[in-house]
Amino acid sequence: MKFSSKIERCALSPIRKFYPYQVEYVKQGKKIYHLNIGQPDIKTPPIYFETLRNFEQPVLEYAPSPGIPVLIEAVQKYFEEIGIRYDTSDIMVTTGGSEALIFALATILDEGDEILVPEPFYPNYNTFVNTTGGKIVPIPTTPEEGYRFADKARIEKLITPKTRAIMFTNPGNPTGVVLTHDECKMLADLAVEHNLFLIADEVYREFIYSGAALSSMASFDHIDQNLILIDSVSKRFSACGARIGVVVSKNKEFMNQLLKLCQARLSVATLDQLASAQLYTVEKSYFDEVRTEYKKRRDTVYSALQKLPGVLCTEPQGAFYLMAKLPVKSADDFQVWLLTQFHDNNETVMYAPGGGFYATPGKGLDEIRIAYVLNSRDLERAIELLGMGLERYNG
Amino acid sequence: MKFSSKIERCALSPIRKFYPYQVEYVKQGKKIYHLNIGQPDIKTPPIYFETLRNFEQPVLEYAPSPGIPVLIEAVQKYFEEIGIRYDTSDIMVTTGGSEALIFALATILDEGDEILVPEPFYPNYNTFVNTTGGKIVPIPTTPEEGYRFADKARIEKLITPKTRAIMFTNPGNPTGVVLTHDECKMLADLAVEHNLFLIADEVYREFIYSGAALSSMASFDHIDQNLILIDSVSKRFSACGARIGVVVSKNKEFMNQLLKLCQARLSVATLDQLASAQLYTVEKSYFDEVRTEYKKRRDTVYSALQKLPGVLCTEPQGAFYLMAKLPVKSADDFQVWLLTQFHDNNETVMYAPGGGFYATPGKGLDEIRIAYVLNSRDLERAIELLGMGLERYNG
Repeated sequence: MKFSSKIERCALSPIRKFYPYQVEYVKQGKKIYHLNIGQPDIKTPPIYFETLRNFEQPVLEYAPSPGIPVLIEAVQKYFEEIGIRYDTSDIMVTTGGSEALIFALATILDEGDEILVPEPFYPNYNTFVNTTGGKIVPIPTTPEEGYRFADKARIEKLITPKTRAIMFTNPGNPTGVVLTHDECKMLADLAVEHNLFLIADEVYREFIYSGAALSSMASFDHIDQNLILIDSVSKRFSACGARIGVVVSKNKEFMNQLLKLCQARLSVATLDQLASAQLYTVEKSYFDEVRTEYKKRRDTVYSALQKLPGVLCTEPQGAFYLMAKLPVKSADDFQVWLLTQFHDNNETVMYAPGGGFYATPGKGLDEIRIAYVLNSRDLERAIELLGMGLERYNG
Repeated sequence: MKFSSKIERCALSPIRKFYPYQVEYVKQGKKIYHLNIGQPDIKTPPIYFETLRNFEQPVLEYAPSPGIPVLIEAVQKYFEEIGIRYDTSDIMVTTGGSEALIFALATILDEGDEILVPEPFYPNYNTFVNTTGGKIVPIPTTPEEGYRFADKARIEKLITPKTRAIMFTNPGNPTGVVLTHDECKMLADLAVEHNLFLIADEVYREFIYSGAALSSMASFDHIDQNLILIDSVSKRFSACGARIGVVVSKNKEFMNQLLKLCQARLSVATLDQLASAQLYTVEKSYFDEVRTEYKKRRDTVYSALQKLPGVLCTEPQGAFYLMAKLPVKSADDFQVWLLTQFHDNNETVMYAPGGGFYATPGKGLDEIRIAYVLNSRDLERAIELLGMGLERYNG
């Protein structure tokens, strides 16, 4: 039987190929430190579970297609508190940031359309764009420049009549890069100048370690008609399993088109919406604590990596990821070796090999993404194992 | 800004245009009987809410992309009990039957591909197919034939080299038609003969009023590689707001392609999966009670409609919908009239106009879909109002 050519262009998770080795390693009674997964270990605010416990309606009904008002209003208030005014009709609830991206891209991309995305990027963008028939055109970066992409000349020369949008994660997954105000302004002006949509995936907005106030692309008023914000409760409140996200835009026609998709899939899970609305009532101090913890982890990982000979890594300023260049030819091969030939005291380490984060073939093969979602002691040990591995692998 | 031509081909819910009239009617202190919405009023089994209350993990984590094993195993066991053997790897959990359909169609349909769907059909199929770039080719039916579509010659002459699949809801939404064993066998043979996928949307499987045992297209072994089953807890357990569905197929390559989409959107809501797994432990008597209640409602609506002059309606055998042909030129205009010019004792009725259920322009304009999800007394009153309305409208 024939499958869609669009789905054929998509790939299974690049992490998946290491799964058999992982299973085998663990079966031998040995331990793996996981730097490859972005699942935070921070407690979900208990009010989430309390809200579920207090639900008393006898029938679990569909929610309205655009989302439950109490959640939409909570999101509206959240933005208001960082100085951004949205109408409730500018916000639609989705099943995670994932569905927010899928729907936003399906709304704007046609067969053969191009979307500019700085690489390395979140690998699921590939599948989201491929299924629309559109194509990612990567904005190149280098480890040596710390993966900064927001350079006007570099981006402008990639724009063609088929370019519809620029999409980026800020703070960046997998790079940890946080855009400066000037870089944001440049991107905003560029979008207006070339009549492009800007898809700003800001799900890591709270995770900035410079002490700067929260910011958003939405603070630029002149891109009202260009900007599509993607947001989610997953990382903000360590509630990944809630699958609650939003698409936010002041472009009424865009929202009206998006509503077609929201209506067709009927609604987002009712109880997860009600509980997520309550997450927005947590004290501001919650974020300070979380940020302090992640900053500590970031510092732990970064300073440990700095001590490894031949490893290149720029200090990440946000999210909870970093990219590092290793002194190996293939991070894939090295990962297999770490899972089959290596152990120290019956322990090894896993990371996400860099190739899967690039659209350009052959790029990123000697790079890795590290998610620093473990406690600092485990992170120290994980980087120690990485260093020992590199020494033996290259020795 | 330009939008995707695929999204431009989709429509907003046809029900939506009556919303302003509805709001105005209610504002005047008057009452509407809703036959237009498929939201059951049956209690969700309490074990759903108990499972949520008993959840004790501190972090709401992502679930595995293909679904949580306890839910997959519950679905596997459910099928086993109706005589159908599936491996756990044949089952993937989705966010409702909606995502199951979206993903299944995206996996098999390419730009310009055709999929045969008997009309009238569930209107959201339009959006799900349009966003793939594929096209619905309707299998025509008539109210006079009771909307039966499974006629070999009729279907075969619609098959072209671009036809990839046949998709149908059985028991049928909006028609209430239940396929006979012979009709199912014919569809199965046809799919094999022409190398087509069969997408069988069986979310109303329990809602059959003939006393027949539960059946599924999956009982035909020779269509193992053709069959894609769509299922959901929404109607079965009156848990529409859980948004838990599944795609089920023994075609390994299909499932492997589907997994790409499941992985890209990360996971389905964790707690809704855990609670839905427990729904499958309810006593068989639960279904008997629900079926008895719906049969009573079906009988109430059907016999009341039979008494209305000029109304054509075949007794529905399943699901909780029926289509009826009215003695009016436009069911749309009549609905507006019912909401603006009519009341009896300050009450009126809403239905879903038939046009939205057809792909063929101009068809179904004098038809309506009725969802009999109200209690029998309300249903009687609703049909009484419909009859009074028709009499005055035509008088």
